[in-house]
Amino acid sequence: MTLCVFSNDLDRLLAAFSIATGAAACGLRVSMFFTFWGTTVLRRDAPQSPGKRLVERMFGWMLPAGPRQQSLSRLHMGGIGRLLIGREMKRKGIPPLTEMIEMAKVSGVEILACSMSMDLMGIRREELLDYPNLRVCGATQFVDMAADGNVTLFV
Amino acid sequence: MTLCVFSNDLDRLLAAFSIATGAAACGLRVSMFFTFWGTTVLRRDAPQSPGKRLVERMFGWMLPAGPRQQSLSRLHMGGIGRLLIGREMKRKGIPPLTEMIEMAKVSGVEILACSMSMDLMGIRREELLDYPNLRVCGATQFVDMAADGNVTLFV
Amino acid sequence: MTLCVFSNDLDRLLAAFSIATGAAACGLRVSMFFTFWGTTVLRRDAPQSPGKRLVERMFGWMLPAGPRQQSLSRLHMGGIGRLLIGREMKRKGIPPLTEMIEMAKVSGVEILACSMSMDLMGIRREELLDYPNLRVCGATQFVDMAADGNVTLFV
Repeated sequence: MTLCVFSNDLDRLLAAFSIATGAAACGLRVSMFFTFWGTTVLRRDAPQSPGKRLVERMFGWMLPAGPRQQSLSRLHMGGIGRLLIGREMKRKGIPPLTEMIEMAKVSGVEILACSMSMDLMGIRREELLDYPNLRVCGATQFVDMAADGNVTLFV
Repeated sequence: MTLCVFSNDLDRLLAAFSIATGAAACGLRVSMFFTFWGTTVLRRDAPQSPGKRLVERMFGWMLPAGPRQQSLSRLHMGGIGRLLIGREMKRKGIPPLTEMIEMAKVSGVEILACSMSMDLMGIRREELLDYPNLRVCGATQFVDMAADGNVTLFV
Repeated sequence: MTLCVFSNDLDRLLAAFSIATGAAACGLRVSMFFTFWGTTVLRRDAPQSPGKRLVERMFGWMLPAGPRQQSLSRLHMGGIGRLLIGREMKRKGIPPLTEMIEMAKVSGVEILACSMSMDLMGIRREELLDYPNLRVCGATQFVDMAADGNVTLFV
């Protein structure tokens, strides 16, 4: 299974990681290709690398960094929606996004970051999360994986 | 064909049901898995079940109930867009969402509701639409169906 | 590979065309089916055809015409986001959407426009871009292609 994670809406990310970890639990080989806004989830919540141009630094400020900073596409209500959903998830035993990423790690989900998107938004390799075998690659690799795979989703 | 209906934008729902009924008419076996905001389409337009906690009741108020209450992702214009598009659809013989759901029913499209999403938003089984063989199930079942299927779309 | 291009967000369109041209470069046969808001990308930036009803003419005014008029789903900032992203793309050698469409043309990507969507928004055949073998067809053709194909994405 190959997932192309384009969006960085918290809700879509939760869906993507639920499907990915579910599929890995079913024994499928799962790869997630993060492109465009999706790459922001892979950012580390840390000061930006030095040597960026002003525009790149601005993108860095404006875009969320990592799983904790993403927001909902609906019921946003200035962040209250995220809080409410987060509390409900906790109460009902649904793991938060950070934990889902840990689950993905443990179950061997492969993560790829789109090189073009990283270049475009000025995200450097060293600004990405620690994730085993995280690779930076192009759209061609995604296409190859999708062509070989069984199921491909664009999230 | 398996569709993962994540969104509850009226336009995306129309696309999803057009594709689903089209595929069923072509002789494919079609399953639609409704998750996250998508589950709100399956809600009955009726008072909520008793015994809900306050937060669950609030989600029930804030989220649309059933196909008639969904709105467009674009040209919303405070509901005018939906009216205009609805009138144009009628004039041009395109069935409205409610009718597309009826068509899906008749052509044997299978509908599944994501148990985690229902739990999260506090939607109870008895609050769902009447639909033959509507099942509540987890992400694993969706993954199974997708792995067996030919085409899988994330809407 | 079959892409169902539902959205007309500039960012999603860039992703769709990157994937399509990438796949065509890998030797896959690629078809893109434009439906709903997606059809607006295929519009020519020219005065509308005569003989439209008022509502159709209104849709024509409100909806963007062609690749140059689409806007970002995020960081819109009244058009500044598009300018910034556009400048960064240029500086980093990423082709703009208009050029990606040219690349798709050259590499033989097939383009299909959804007849129902065109009918709904009052877009006429002669208002579409010049693109070799551009066909107007229904959802059934899309389903057929997807069922025969290897990878299907809903963008």
